[in-house]
Amino acid sequence: MTDPRLSELAHLLPELKISTDPGDLEHHGRDWTRRWTPEPLAIAWPSSIEEVQGVVRWANAQGVAVVPSGGRTGLSGGAVAANGELVLSLDRMNRVLGFDPIDRTLTVQPGIALEAVHNAARERGLLYPVDFAARGSCQIGGNIATNAGGIRVIRYGNTRQWIAGLKVVTGTGDVLDLNRGLVKNASGYDLRHLVIGSEGTLGIVVEATLSLTSPPPPSQVMLLAVPAMDALMKVFAEARHRLRLEAFEFFTDRALHHVLAHGAQRPFDETHPFYVVTEFDAADERAEADALAFFEFCLGEGWVVDGAISSSEGQAAALWRLREGITESLAPHKPYKNDVSVRISAVPAFMAEMQDLLSAEYPHFDVVWFGHIGDGNLHINVLKPADLDNAVFVGQCEHVTSMLVETLARHGGSISAEHGIGLVKKPWLGSVRSEVEIALMRGIKAVWDPNGIMNPGKLL
Amino acid sequence: MTDPRLSELAHLLPELKISTDPGDLEHHGRDWTRRWTPEPLAIAWPSSIEEVQGVVRWANAQGVAVVPSGGRTGLSGGAVAANGELVLSLDRMNRVLGFDPIDRTLTVQPGIALEAVHNAARERGLLYPVDFAARGSCQIGGNIATNAGGIRVIRYGNTRQWIAGLKVVTGTGDVLDLNRGLVKNASGYDLRHLVIGSEGTLGIVVEATLSLTSPPPPSQVMLLAVPAMDALMKVFAEARHRLRLEAFEFFTDRALHHVLAHGAQRPFDETHPFYVVTEFDAADERAEADALAFFEFCLGEGWVVDGAISSSEGQAAALWRLREGITESLAPHKPYKNDVSVRISAVPAFMAEMQDLLSAEYPHFDVVWFGHIGDGNLHINVLKPADLDNAVFVGQCEHVTSMLVETLARHGGSISAEHGIGLVKKPWLGSVRSEVEIALMRGIKAVWDPNGIMNPGKLL
Repeated sequence: MTDPRLSELAHLLPELKISTDPGDLEHHGRDWTRRWTPEPLAIAWPSSIEEVQGVVRWANAQGVAVVPSGGRTGLSGGAVAANGELVLSLDRMNRVLGFDPIDRTLTVQPGIALEAVHNAARERGLLYPVDFAARGSCQIGGNIATNAGGIRVIRYGNTRQWIAGLKVVTGTGDVLDLNRGLVKNASGYDLRHLVIGSEGTLGIVVEATLSLTSPPPPSQVMLLAVPAMDALMKVFAEARHRLRLEAFEFFTDRALHHVLAHGAQRPFDETHPFYVVTEFDAADERAEADALAFFEFCLGEGWVVDGAISSSEGQAAALWRLREGITESLAPHKPYKNDVSVRISAVPAFMAEMQDLLSAEYPHFDVVWFGHIGDGNLHINVLKPADLDNAVFVGQCEHVTSMLVETLARHGGSISAEHGIGLVKKPWLGSVRSEVEIALMRGIKAVWDPNGIMNPGKLL
Repeated sequence: MTDPRLSELAHLLPELKISTDPGDLEHHGRDWTRRWTPEPLAIAWPSSIEEVQGVVRWANAQGVAVVPSGGRTGLSGGAVAANGELVLSLDRMNRVLGFDPIDRTLTVQPGIALEAVHNAARERGLLYPVDFAARGSCQIGGNIATNAGGIRVIRYGNTRQWIAGLKVVTGTGDVLDLNRGLVKNASGYDLRHLVIGSEGTLGIVVEATLSLTSPPPPSQVMLLAVPAMDALMKVFAEARHRLRLEAFEFFTDRALHHVLAHGAQRPFDETHPFYVVTEFDAADERAEADALAFFEFCLGEGWVVDGAISSSEGQAAALWRLREGITESLAPHKPYKNDVSVRISAVPAFMAEMQDLLSAEYPHFDVVWFGHIGDGNLHINVLKPADLDNAVFVGQCEHVTSMLVETLARHGGSISAEHGIGLVKKPWLGSVRSEVEIALMRGIKAVWDPNGIMNPGKLL
């Protein structure tokens, strides 16, 4: 640690754990994206709010940029440090600080893993309902910084809805204690909601008070084979009307093809264009009868041509595997991926138009669609043809992105549903936010972080 | 209209309805507060987003302040124009613009009354769930500007949760089209949430896309007599655990006294310190059995000493009247009122401490408490003793406010649960928001409204 700036930091905060070990720099200098070469100045692991403040004040004085770092499971490069930044890792601030059974709130440090939050809630007979695949390694601070969504948004909303209080260290090193767990608090701008989803560009989440809820009743899972997209939307509307939905996911025949090739068990004899996996409350016989009536109605209308329903937890898990195994089954094909959203009602027209563009321009591409119909969130994956040169494929995928951006704009959609903007999507921010909005965001950032040290280059 | 600034406005926007009639100035220059003398420059009724933009641009050029004006049912002076401002009334922009059954969204102009939104949703088989007493005259734009709450927050949250899209004219006259009805959209700072609750100080809501939901199943209403505050909190926790609550309201014996004096029917022979009115789903016999089991359990524990349950809509309305009639029954006593919140778990200690302070200092005051226990929102009313001079009473009430502010601060509460800050609570903003938070709010306002023309003097 010969850099005089780091010597100064170690002098100011003698208890602060700091590393310039090359392995640490590489490991903590990036997220799940692999596009940038990590090159941070150092990694720091504060263990208290005061140490976080100390680091930020030092960074302001020394003109060093700070990259807040959680589980680094992001897919948009929001936690990449490739330009001599100090990575501020929250790994050591990972404890449960408190629980209140009347408020039904759990107060945690930002470095706690999402799964540990789930467990802490469950141990207290309650539920923290935001859930997605990275639960084991992602941290709640990162969930808040990206307003993480996942598979239960149709029932429970995004992370935003579960944040009752937030402590934040701003870009000037001040600590804010926002909302303090209140349910009703009409006392000026809700800065809590400004921080949620700000990707570490305004400040660092150093403590969160999470709202918990009652666990849902027992549920059932249904798999449906659907002949067409317009039928799928009708099935969705009918399901939402008749059942109490926990999830409503779809995937295409191409997705099923890859999951089956990866070892899953074929659910139906025939193949079908679309499949739905839906989970819903099934507390009693009446609810189960409702589910059956829903299925038979859809069958009668011709919206559904085959189906399976879980009658045990094992069967439920097997049906879910068909949807949850998709990403893993595609990984060997090094797919181009994107995570986008449109209004729910715009899904069929957007998908059809995008599919037509792709078929016309790249008929040899294997395009796999899946996602959360119930919140208009689609994941598109384009697989590299085995015989295509990687560099050529990457170039073609850039063109796919342009087509996607333009098609989304025509349908009022967003280039990022739940992964954030980070570095990856920054070139296209202007397709979803107006110039005036971006100017307002820059203005707000300048108020919170006048020296521009908080995660610079990300998002804005 | 001899003011040259108004002549210029009429010249720029020939279709704009403008009035300087003294009756209009007085009527539209204030809200439900009666503390300030209305003295606006004029009232303008734009009929389009373009006209709103034109007014704001004119205001910037002329240095005239603009007070956005909805149903003017506010209790914090947020819509008062007492300093030569132009009142921008949204009364003419009151139409439903669109409905999408798949997205379950209703797009409306800002001047539509909350009750008209309820009706529009109901006609489409759906529910807009935010509800409170001013529904007939308050406007959705004002609801958004104050993040209005009400009696169903325990089930449905505040207004914030139901805003899927927002068009806003900023302090510079630019129009923002925020979020556009998307469920998932992780593309930078969520400016929509910054506008919600900003009390017209950042811009003017000119269109809103509201999320709707399924109507709840049939419900029942239960009235409970409760011997003590700690028992009341246990009853609440038990009810939340066993029933699917729509509302959980409480009031004191003093509140019941005034409602009965105002003509309501006595529910129980004995009097009791506290009463609860709770409404919950009762879709079938099983749910009704659950409710009975809950009641008997509370009775067995001694947390409840008497009770009544509705078996018809008329009975439900009669039980609700005991809670909803309180405000009207107190009005003749010209009460000092305040609307405050603490965390739910802090309610008993806060109320006890405040009641002790009041009893010690003002033993002759009739203090009436009621409110929404389920969201920590308490309404305190102090009645003027008949023989006390009004000016003396007002002076003593200022001291009550000081005691309230200090007690709230000790318990981490807020001086405004759902009424906003406006002019009335501005002196105490610093008790609930830190200096750094207020500085950030001012900085954000300067970005959105560089000339300070948007509702100046309110909130900040």
